Amino acid sequence: MLIVYKRMMAMSGRFQKQMDFLLEIDKIKEIYRQTYIADASRKENDAEHSWHSCIMAIVLAEYFDKDIDLLKVIKMMLMHDVVEIYAGDTYCYDDKGNEDKEEREMASAHRVYGLLPEDQKAEFMAIWREFEEQKTKEAIFCAILDRVQPTILNKAANFISWQEHGIRKEQVLKRNAITFSGPEEIASYMKNLIEKAAEDGYLK
Amino acid sequence: MLIVYKRMMAMSGRFQKQMDFLLEIDKIKEIYRQTYIADASRKENDAEHSWHSCIMAIVLAEYFDKDIDLLKVIKMMLMHDVVEIYAGDTYCYDDKGNEDKEEREMASAHRVYGLLPEDQKAEFMAIWREFEEQKTKEAIFCAILDRVQPTILNKAANFISWQEHGIRKEQVLKRNAITFSGPEEIASYMKNLIEKAAEDGYLK
Repeated sequence: MLIVYKRMMAMSGRFQKQMDFLLEIDKIKEIYRQTYIADASRKENDAEHSWHSCIMAIVLAEYFDKDIDLLKVIKMMLMHDVVEIYAGDTYCYDDKGNEDKEEREMASAHRVYGLLPEDQKAEFMAIWREFEEQKTKEAIFCAILDRVQPTILNKAANFISWQEHGIRKEQVLKRNAITFSGPEEIASYMKNLIEKAAEDGYLK
Repeated sequence: MLIVYKRMMAMSGRFQKQMDFLLEIDKIKEIYRQTYIADASRKENDAEHSWHSCIMAIVLAEYFDKDIDLLKVIKMMLMHDVVEIYAGDTYCYDDKGNEDKEEREMASAHRVYGLLPEDQKAEFMAIWREFEEQKTKEAIFCAILDRVQPTILNKAANFISWQEHGIRKEQVLKRNAITFSGPEEIASYMKNLIEKAAEDGYLK
């Protein structure tokens, strides 16, 4: 027993920090979004949304610039909602919640990424900020994924999420401005989906 | 309305196949594993496990070969359980279930990846097979992640999963042979964790 404890004590501080972070982010599995999974049986959580968006990135990468850094795109999508562990999920159509979202998420980012060694904290904070700023081509790709992924689920679930919140067509169009500026296939798909949803009475 | 439908009809067959696949894999969120999330409130599903393992890959990559292809590692971890959509999750200590696991998963792989355009089906099947074969350094990295991720959750949840199934120490040691052949920090961490769990009576 003494030998075991001695060995555990010998685990480097760096590795311990990494393991502490990896355990802490398990909490993201209990952060539920306003989107339902496709069979409408329950809302989806941040871990599921992130996983699904990453697969979408791989499948749809061919519609984006050939020189896009796909690893960076996926890192962004894996990480982008980790800040919600303490800040909670802010629904994209919640105007009041979005007023102090940046402040809440920045505090949360320092807290959760602060568990990591300094260099990794800096790397992950930079990835998250690049995602939030929506300026680089990788961040724009991510912003589009972050809109298309919940929309295909919402459509499968008869737009239950938009209906529950009484969302207006103009809100969805505004939120998807960045999607419409993206690849033609994706932009058309989303435009048509939104038009049809509005025609069918799923959007106010 | 006619214009909308005409536009939808114009969506390319390739893009439609990709969107069909992306919707179908949502079902992975309802494939539950034997591992509990860290607070032991419920079992975790394949989407969550995959997401968590990908972040772990990024955080722990520094312990592996410098020239490891991290994008490939992450693609493998994102994809490795997609075959369970129709084949179901097979608990690693379920000897009977593991007898026909390969056959069931191969049929499932053809069905789910068959929704994609041929070239992407071939790419994703190859990634999944490379993962299963555990020969390349990327696949070995993944095999280690696939063992460490549930173990840190299991530890946090007082080893409820091992206790429920009456798992023996020898089974865990055998399953982790590949982990022990990996980087020293990770191998030591896992060895100590398993020794301590056995000493504390969580393993038979």
